[in-house]
Amino acid sequence: MSLNTFGHLFRVTTWGESHGPALGATVDGCPPGVAIDEAMIQQWLDKRKPGQNKFTTQRQEPDAVRILSGVFEGKTTGTPVQLMIENTDQRSKDYGDIAEKFRPGHADITYWQKYGIRDYRGGGRSSARETAARVAAGGLARAALAAAVPGIEIKGYMVQIGPHKIDRSRFDWGQIDQNPFWTPDAQAAEDWADYLGQLRKSGDSVGAVIEVVARGVPAGLGAPVYGKLDTDLAAAMMSINAVKAVEIGDGMDSAALTGSENADEITMGPDGPVYSSNHAGGILGGISTGQDVVLRFAVKPTSSILNPRRTITKSGEETTIITKGRHDPCVGIRAVPVGEAMMACVILDHLLLHRGQIGQAGGKIGPAS
Amino acid sequence: MSLNTFGHLFRVTTWGESHGPALGATVDGCPPGVAIDEAMIQQWLDKRKPGQNKFTTQRQEPDAVRILSGVFEGKTTGTPVQLMIENTDQRSKDYGDIAEKFRPGHADITYWQKYGIRDYRGGGRSSARETAARVAAGGLARAALAAAVPGIEIKGYMVQIGPHKIDRSRFDWGQIDQNPFWTPDAQAAEDWADYLGQLRKSGDSVGAVIEVVARGVPAGLGAPVYGKLDTDLAAAMMSINAVKAVEIGDGMDSAALTGSENADEITMGPDGPVYSSNHAGGILGGISTGQDVVLRFAVKPTSSILNPRRTITKSGEETTIITKGRHDPCVGIRAVPVGEAMMACVILDHLLLHRGQIGQAGGKIGPAS
Amino acid sequence: MSLNTFGHLFRVTTWGESHGPALGATVDGCPPGVAIDEAMIQQWLDKRKPGQNKFTTQRQEPDAVRILSGVFEGKTTGTPVQLMIENTDQRSKDYGDIAEKFRPGHADITYWQKYGIRDYRGGGRSSARETAARVAAGGLARAALAAAVPGIEIKGYMVQIGPHKIDRSRFDWGQIDQNPFWTPDAQAAEDWADYLGQLRKSGDSVGAVIEVVARGVPAGLGAPVYGKLDTDLAAAMMSINAVKAVEIGDGMDSAALTGSENADEITMGPDGPVYSSNHAGGILGGISTGQDVVLRFAVKPTSSILNPRRTITKSGEETTIITKGRHDPCVGIRAVPVGEAMMACVILDHLLLHRGQIGQAGGKIGPAS
Amino acid sequence: MSLNTFGHLFRVTTWGESHGPALGATVDGCPPGVAIDEAMIQQWLDKRKPGQNKFTTQRQEPDAVRILSGVFEGKTTGTPVQLMIENTDQRSKDYGDIAEKFRPGHADITYWQKYGIRDYRGGGRSSARETAARVAAGGLARAALAAAVPGIEIKGYMVQIGPHKIDRSRFDWGQIDQNPFWTPDAQAAEDWADYLGQLRKSGDSVGAVIEVVARGVPAGLGAPVYGKLDTDLAAAMMSINAVKAVEIGDGMDSAALTGSENADEITMGPDGPVYSSNHAGGILGGISTGQDVVLRFAVKPTSSILNPRRTITKSGEETTIITKGRHDPCVGIRAVPVGEAMMACVILDHLLLHRGQIGQAGGKIGPAS
Repeated sequence: MSLNTFGHLFRVTTWGESHGPALGATVDGCPPGVAIDEAMIQQWLDKRKPGQNKFTTQRQEPDAVRILSGVFEGKTTGTPVQLMIENTDQRSKDYGDIAEKFRPGHADITYWQKYGIRDYRGGGRSSARETAARVAAGGLARAALAAAVPGIEIKGYMVQIGPHKIDRSRFDWGQIDQNPFWTPDAQAAEDWADYLGQLRKSGDSVGAVIEVVARGVPAGLGAPVYGKLDTDLAAAMMSINAVKAVEIGDGMDSAALTGSENADEITMGPDGPVYSSNHAGGILGGISTGQDVVLRFAVKPTSSILNPRRTITKSGEETTIITKGRHDPCVGIRAVPVGEAMMACVILDHLLLHRGQIGQAGGKIGPAS
Repeated sequence: MSLNTFGHLFRVTTWGESHGPALGATVDGCPPGVAIDEAMIQQWLDKRKPGQNKFTTQRQEPDAVRILSGVFEGKTTGTPVQLMIENTDQRSKDYGDIAEKFRPGHADITYWQKYGIRDYRGGGRSSARETAARVAAGGLARAALAAAVPGIEIKGYMVQIGPHKIDRSRFDWGQIDQNPFWTPDAQAAEDWADYLGQLRKSGDSVGAVIEVVARGVPAGLGAPVYGKLDTDLAAAMMSINAVKAVEIGDGMDSAALTGSENADEITMGPDGPVYSSNHAGGILGGISTGQDVVLRFAVKPTSSILNPRRTITKSGEETTIITKGRHDPCVGIRAVPVGEAMMACVILDHLLLHRGQIGQAGGKIGPAS
Repeated sequence: MSLNTFGHLFRVTTWGESHGPALGATVDGCPPGVAIDEAMIQQWLDKRKPGQNKFTTQRQEPDAVRILSGVFEGKTTGTPVQLMIENTDQRSKDYGDIAEKFRPGHADITYWQKYGIRDYRGGGRSSARETAARVAAGGLARAALAAAVPGIEIKGYMVQIGPHKIDRSRFDWGQIDQNPFWTPDAQAAEDWADYLGQLRKSGDSVGAVIEVVARGVPAGLGAPVYGKLDTDLAAAMMSINAVKAVEIGDGMDSAALTGSENADEITMGPDGPVYSSNHAGGILGGISTGQDVVLRFAVKPTSSILNPRRTITKSGEETTIITKGRHDPCVGIRAVPVGEAMMACVILDHLLLHRGQIGQAGGKIGPAS
Repeated sequence: MSLNTFGHLFRVTTWGESHGPALGATVDGCPPGVAIDEAMIQQWLDKRKPGQNKFTTQRQEPDAVRILSGVFEGKTTGTPVQLMIENTDQRSKDYGDIAEKFRPGHADITYWQKYGIRDYRGGGRSSARETAARVAAGGLARAALAAAVPGIEIKGYMVQIGPHKIDRSRFDWGQIDQNPFWTPDAQAAEDWADYLGQLRKSGDSVGAVIEVVARGVPAGLGAPVYGKLDTDLAAAMMSINAVKAVEIGDGMDSAALTGSENADEITMGPDGPVYSSNHAGGILGGISTGQDVVLRFAVKPTSSILNPRRTITKSGEETTIITKGRHDPCVGIRAVPVGEAMMACVILDHLLLHRGQIGQAGGKIGPAS
């Protein structure tokens, strides 16, 4: 069985393979009346688009999205929105060598074990190309969110590549869009360019950590205890290709804290509660606090490398493999807009779930009026 | 909105509050014919039971499970299994102080913001007491798994408490059940006892990291791309109270690896593929490889501490709070059987999903016969 | 596989067998703040309760509901509500004869074929006793609906028993609660009493048609195209034991109409559209119009009769069977409150779904202001 | 909210409007290894295609399906199958008159009330054109069913048009494909041609009843108590445009039967149970018996007629309306392949659900071996 839908009310079903005629996202549950057009979605796809610089795959795809349904006279109608991206660069000759061999660290072998089908054309459904459909859906989610929660902002950026982390003291929000790594640390961007350039020449690849922040999320979003906001965010991020870990707020470091250290103390501000810190990453008990929602996810290095690795063939023979072709030395770079898209979808979904409550939309804090 | 069900085919709905008459799990989709009785489930609840040693809450609850439906003549019938645990120790006077104040780092405030209801009796639904229901459901899942996959084993253990990690060179599987921390490192168990004893006296709490391993999981489980095995495991673990991070295989450390390092090389053994290492944690492309499935999750320190923290009341007044009452200095200890239970439920669920395939159950590896 | 949950946001999972310790409904997604207590639910269970008159089974069950979770200080908290009914009259000796034989027209044989389990104690999960849990959940749904849509009314009544239909010219809403058949035709109630009395003496049973009307349903409810209001009502009613057909509005008779006859013409009233008729049963395109929602469902005669029928045993031997024990000559009578309960659950569910929309709750009809 | 997905494991999401660029079905959960190509699906679309004779709309659409994903080298891969049909005949000038007026008996008004959007181009999403996507998905379901259950056959046919029913004594399975009404009664086909010809000239429309039969369905399919086979069939049929009633087996007529009459007596044949009759329509307790699964549904007359009807405009003004354009005098004719498609999807879905059981696939009937 496959399960290609995520979301409770804002439901995104992605479809399509790396080398088929097209791929896309069937989005059901988008509220009616949201202003949207192809250009509004295309801007996010362009951010993810391959071939933009020497650190991403040289596959040349315009990744032009078409809206096939659900929009009339510039607004969503409340019916399913079909977002299709045609595959134009389907060169498959590069992949001939891997029709029989399994790439170590790649889903080749497990897809074969599960389905008994080998779609060797660039990984088929397991290809990171599937994430283009997520980004398209995320563009629609962003538009719906912007209409519902003015000022909400969702931003992803790299905080680590290989062993090299950013220096948080140099964190500059304005730098994020100024370098090919989407990193807020300008110095790190320079260092990483050298590092990754060498790595690429050596035919190797490397992992990364991406942080995604959502600002302006209303308090009260999340559906305990199995549809918590952090639960759904963890699932959303872990479903992205090559992701091996997800952290909320302090994440793994929480384990080392005492309760006294971990407590985000609360005082009263003019607009409601004010927190002294954000160890929680904006989520308590699976429900948003109104602080920034902060998460990180780790992306492993791509398995498509030029260094020979031992492996086996479908018929069980031992051999070695190197993967030629057009691959990213660090797939984490292009995972940034994907993480943003998933964040947007999850938050919109929970906004819709929360609005479904009858009557009062939650408890107020402050003197009884 | 709340969402209290998890699982696709093996669906567990937990219900009940910390201080209500009872709590439990309504389990739908359990296969028929599974041998089960209350004692088989009780053994796992006893592992989680409070009041077992000085490091867990002194609340005295027998946590006796009753099977109210779905079992006839010692076997499941394929209809819903109701597992109920009555609350016998419902002292609520301890909680009087927090009826108006919000505990920093606790879900008090967000439950109020979401629902406009303050169930101050021990946290209500947000209490870790809810996890007793998970453990009960996990006991049923284990029985069904054992029947379907002979030899499958699921085991959780602590690998870190506060800043103190185990020494992997001392890892001894046989030690896990021999100490109150469920840790495979006997020396760590002694050191931690001292550390936690002092922490408890100081009225503080601390976080932890739990590792859960499933051995003997067949290859092919997982439902790409939004019901991947790791996706569902990440969601399952993140839904547990106080969990702030989930890692699969090398987890966050994957980011620092090169592709050459990360590749789990493959050779051919007598029974199928053999891997040189398990950076992947037994999951590639969201599908099990047949290796051990390995995950870790981080539990933050409980917010119920004796050190005063600044906070506000429902009416917006600033104040401070300390939390008296019966609390665990390290909730991570009791999270061990909970993590095991969630692992059991997710793997069973995916086994059922995978069996739903028509015809061949996946591709074979080896010479054509 | 079994699937024991219905509803999209107001999700009801029923559990329990005819002769187990208890049965009930786990209700998730009920909005917070709904005033509810056991008595408010009990009133509906009492309407369905067996043993009330000579036309319903003489099984004596108080069917007393207990609220085990989700309610605090008299109001729902937004967390799962567990409604439990203990079985007190579990005489099983009556059923000894059917442990090996299959009753023609009963689910005995298909439950065996599906699950390989024979719960011969009164039909197990296939017993109409399961509908007590539906009625309990429906009581909660009614309370939530009443809070959200003042004046909404849901009423079921019998319009046919065996071949005998009511005379619509004698339809009197006030009569419904005045007779054991819940019929609006007082004369029919008298005639049917004679008819059913004779039938009962002969050891036979008979079918019935129940009509359920919801008044005051807002326009706009329904989720096209697979969660239409009529789609979900059809599923809800067809899921009730012994139901073989569901009609909306004119139902089967629609087939014989011309488009000119079927058109419910529209004029403009002070409060919005006014319809000249209601062939549509209050639903167009799967969405409520604001007219009365009207449906009917047919209940087949119970298969537990005293006339011998040919059948087989589990081991394949041919034999005959008669069913002694305490059975209703017309199960349709007690299906009335069940149909009401399902209507209440479905309408509440769609109200919640509709409220989930962002911004405008739909289009207005009338001059632009 | 809209909900455009049906099915538990074989999940079909349809998308697209009457006059948008395209419509289609995103099918998730199709088993891998099913042989399929566009021609196999096209044959069913051709059966539904408009413009085939004078009794169906003269809209000329080739309705050519394209498979955009999920199929590789002629077989399904187990990943989502995207079936797209481009709209080529999008004349919208015919619909100008209804941009402001609501058609009585049509979903125009409720879509407006729900969404606040008026897609006046042929009804938008509420158009029966959506059913083309169902037929495409049904074509895939048929292929998967044929592979899994050799000999299974699904057939729909008309049994009533307006007040005119077929004569069951003339029932001839071989006639069904020989006339434009898909009716098994050759004489009725001739009579109906005259009747419908006159009706069409008068600018009116009429309803119909379609019967759908599935032969060769294995015993044991269905997921009590809310995913029963009849429950899901009722929902599937009721979700089709213009359907107002669904019957299983004897349907509404069951109400008039006694238990003695209704009992389908059982004897033992060489291959298992043999039933003396099929009042149950092949379903007991929501589970298939192995007999023919038989259902009927009633289609109301289309609301697009040339006789003027009173109505109102969006701004609340009273007026009258006639609907010019290309419409079917009896939409029931084209509902035949749609009903078949829904039957195929539901049965495949339940086959997959049933296969998900661990171990024995159900109980055996016959002497212990």
